[in-house]
Amino acid sequence: MNESHDDILQAVYQVVQERKAVPAENSYTASLMAKGIDTILKKLGEEATELVIAGKGGARDEIVYETADLFFHTLVLLAHYDISPDEIYAELRRRFGISGIAEKASRVPLK
Amino acid sequence: MNESHDDILQAVYQVVQERKAVPAENSYTASLMAKGIDTILKKLGEEATELVIAGKGGARDEIVYETADLFFHTLVLLAHYDISPDEIYAELRRRFGISGIAEKASRVPLK
Amino acid sequence: MNESHDDILQAVYQVVQERKAVPAENSYTASLMAKGIDTILKKLGEEATELVIAGKGGARDEIVYETADLFFHTLVLLAHYDISPDEIYAELRRRFGISGIAEKASRVPLK
Amino acid sequence: MNESHDDILQAVYQVVQERKAVPAENSYTASLMAKGIDTILKKLGEEATELVIAGKGGARDEIVYETADLFFHTLVLLAHYDISPDEIYAELRRRFGISGIAEKASRVPLK
Repeated sequence: MNESHDDILQAVYQVVQERKAVPAENSYTASLMAKGIDTILKKLGEEATELVIAGKGGARDEIVYETADLFFHTLVLLAHYDISPDEIYAELRRRFGISGIAEKASRVPLK
Repeated sequence: MNESHDDILQAVYQVVQERKAVPAENSYTASLMAKGIDTILKKLGEEATELVIAGKGGARDEIVYETADLFFHTLVLLAHYDISPDEIYAELRRRFGISGIAEKASRVPLK
Repeated sequence: MNESHDDILQAVYQVVQERKAVPAENSYTASLMAKGIDTILKKLGEEATELVIAGKGGARDEIVYETADLFFHTLVLLAHYDISPDEIYAELRRRFGISGIAEKASRVPLK
Repeated sequence: MNESHDDILQAVYQVVQERKAVPAENSYTASLMAKGIDTILKKLGEEATELVIAGKGGARDEIVYETADLFFHTLVLLAHYDISPDEIYAELRRRFGISGIAEKASRVPLK
């Protein structure tokens, strides 16, 4: 199973990892990672709050935008600890009883 | 492009949508969705806080667990508004200049 | 009962109200209030996250600093809605069974 | 300077400290403090989120209620670290150039 090729979260995670390894000038991601864990966590809390505000407001485009922001900053946190999105997927599969292989093969109804 | 078949976020999103359409007894998801947007947003903020605490603590297994929680509750919010994860992916692709098709075909280095 | 004269939260609240009425140049408070409720709420969530991070870290001076930040931004939110800190005090007195007058007069042990 | 006698935050802080010293049965505060710092921080984040939701909604009574909740849980965090509200007041006085004594004596306009 390889989810990385058309998995956008994996693709973004790899961009973040590259930024961590080879900080590019004027890269927001590189700058954020260089500032360390407290700054990353602060941004995560900030983005979560912005999604709560957008979610309360109810404007679809804002919710999409803020969810993308939240996912991105969560990926930055994961990259800080070298935790691949695959580990999150595995946890979600475990909880929901979804097998990556079986699911594709059998198309069984999800629990 | 169909990312749903081996995309765990899409799979979980569909589970949530099913729970919304046909509330199962004793379903945490159905109960949460029935309580409405304020409760969903409260849980989202709560899970974000728990991820911040875990992220500050630095225990890998807790970070994985709390990230899964945060992603799940974000999917519940999206389901409340019938916003597919695909819309979030499209926003991330746009930002990072990643084309789902081109990416798979050419394996060009990500920006 | 007038708690405002040696009550620092009331004093800060009044500063914020003055900044709202007569925006001073280069005033952070005036600028924040002018940006409206979403920006105020975003800052509130940000400061709460910073207090959570400081609280997990355990450094006293950071906790004092971040609590002051959180209280200040909460006062900005209250000022946005013209809700005096006295209303919050009344709610807390009600919950804890503390009477401002009786408390001063009799020094009865708090519940 | 003694702000504690008609200062409701100080009064609540002292209640929390008593609950910490002598845990009463069925006391929410005692139970919360016994669960430790992570639970206290989780509740703090939760209450901040609820205030953000109420602040976005705009209902005055909810804002008052949630601010009281947020202040209370902040006092629990301070009590966990034995940080008196007076330390927060001192920080706010320092920032805003407000002297407790001079303020009462001269009624100078606040900066």
